[in-house]
Amino acid sequence: MKSWSDGLLKLVAKCNNFELPGSSKNSCLPFIVSGQQVGLVREDILEHLRPYTDVFEIQHTNHGQSNGCVTPGVYLLDKYQSVEERNEVMKYVLDDLRRKNGLVSLRGWRNETYDIRCKRSDPMMMKMERSGCCLFGTIQYGVHINGYFYDKDGQLMMWLGRRSKTKPTYPDMLDNMCAGGLASDLGIMECAIKECQEEASVEDRYLKNLKSVGCISYCYEDSRGVHPECQFVFDLELSEDFEPNNTDGEVGSFSLHTIEEVKTLIVSEEFKPNCALVILDFLMRHGIVTPDNEPNYPYLNEMMHFPLQSTYLTFGDCCENSQN
Amino acid sequence: MKSWSDGLLKLVAKCNNFELPGSSKNSCLPFIVSGQQVGLVREDILEHLRPYTDVFEIQHTNHGQSNGCVTPGVYLLDKYQSVEERNEVMKYVLDDLRRKNGLVSLRGWRNETYDIRCKRSDPMMMKMERSGCCLFGTIQYGVHINGYFYDKDGQLMMWLGRRSKTKPTYPDMLDNMCAGGLASDLGIMECAIKECQEEASVEDRYLKNLKSVGCISYCYEDSRGVHPECQFVFDLELSEDFEPNNTDGEVGSFSLHTIEEVKTLIVSEEFKPNCALVILDFLMRHGIVTPDNEPNYPYLNEMMHFPLQSTYLTFGDCCENSQN
Repeated sequence: MKSWSDGLLKLVAKCNNFELPGSSKNSCLPFIVSGQQVGLVREDILEHLRPYTDVFEIQHTNHGQSNGCVTPGVYLLDKYQSVEERNEVMKYVLDDLRRKNGLVSLRGWRNETYDIRCKRSDPMMMKMERSGCCLFGTIQYGVHINGYFYDKDGQLMMWLGRRSKTKPTYPDMLDNMCAGGLASDLGIMECAIKECQEEASVEDRYLKNLKSVGCISYCYEDSRGVHPECQFVFDLELSEDFEPNNTDGEVGSFSLHTIEEVKTLIVSEEFKPNCALVILDFLMRHGIVTPDNEPNYPYLNEMMHFPLQSTYLTFGDCCENSQN
Repeated sequence: MKSWSDGLLKLVAKCNNFELPGSSKNSCLPFIVSGQQVGLVREDILEHLRPYTDVFEIQHTNHGQSNGCVTPGVYLLDKYQSVEERNEVMKYVLDDLRRKNGLVSLRGWRNETYDIRCKRSDPMMMKMERSGCCLFGTIQYGVHINGYFYDKDGQLMMWLGRRSKTKPTYPDMLDNMCAGGLASDLGIMECAIKECQEEASVEDRYLKNLKSVGCISYCYEDSRGVHPECQFVFDLELSEDFEPNNTDGEVGSFSLHTIEEVKTLIVSEEFKPNCALVILDFLMRHGIVTPDNEPNYPYLNEMMHFPLQSTYLTFGDCCENSQN
């Protein structure tokens, strides 16, 4: 069990590598739209944004101005005032960057937009192409569904998906039964139902069991950019005769596992890390991983709920405080 | 629903007031035992510790020393090397402070010790009288049990306890069905079972349903001191014919509520705040509060899992980093 416990520590570290010493955290600039921080831009990505002087103002040093405090940041110019104007100019920048082909992330273009906000409860500032979000370090939201059942012997079984080999990110890796990003204009339960239907052909008689059970949050960075993410988690209790069937080509295959097998798989290299975290949360909520059998229980729990909404996007607060 | 939602924001703010602007957070000194930070001491409490020059060394400013970095802090003198020596000297200090009668917290002397560690997974450094822990801002652990059932119409019902009028803290306020601090030398499930038996006379046939479902963490301060707390949460599904019955005098009375009544009560002034947070976690895990019906869902979730283990006791890390 010691090595499994170590595997869990590695897992939460991987999902939160932006918080570890040596990350780019301290050299990122806040991305600011209309006085609100909505993301973080890494130095290597900043270089790609410099040419767009008619779109962004880049401030490197802290200095006072007659009209208030100016802190370092990448500022979307205030002339883009409406949501529509911002959508349009960000689309122009990302299309142009994609054409130049210098950014890994944009090679996985999704043709799907995410809503950009400061906190989740704040008004929408603009929409942005999904593959561009990590360039600006905006919080991305998604839904993940744990598909499970108790077999006739009372044994807990879980369905896992294996991602299609053609997925732009984490191809061929193990995943939750269904999951997906929260596209613009979709409700969260609505999005979860859609993923269950499209990815696993879950019928209505099971969908009534779909239950919202929490969310996890974490922040990692990789060659693509910075990824602060919040995943809304759903449990879906199935019965032994159900078998998932993919219709949208996003899942390569499904496999059924005992919970002991699942425990081994989530600390293996073949599991997409954030999906493994969703399962760790499941194991804790279902009394399988407990504070008595896992010494790092409080730490793991905290690192699965990293405070993105309160301590990550602090630019606005910082500015507010300096004005007091 | 707007005002209920505001009530939840007030609740998480109350439980995390140590993180709010204007708190004593930035003026506290770390409490250090054998090179490890195990707590935080507030300025008003520091004055009471000053006379004990044979027990603590108090450093106010950062300065280098030949044998490594010395950062500001309240250091338990290194001559108290063993757990037994530390237990003894801390008992001496707290007994003496209690006799002087200048600290509110010690008027609620418990005669019960807590294990003091840096992180939960670290070795125990010493034991400390429960009412003294908030003077040194050490993390306190406890167990909370949600007692609930579905009635014959399928309606979710929950038992609440009302704290005895003679409790030293939060007398006569609403509480979870059972809860208690994690005393030294008790396992966590063991402690939860004990509380169920002593506080509510739960019989074995129900105790088999007791399920570990997560933990919440937060940090607040009050006139007594600083309270970083982690509560291990348990769900206990009961049946309609069960009725809790207190045997240890800690609970004044029990009452049974629909979940709608519980929702109203947790944002009222008569609920002990951390117990209300335990119920908010229950409402989220059971699909009653969802990201579709609660705009601050991610924020609330994050503030119920404040990272005490990783970002609160950072003295040791800080020292390690400065040595790299």
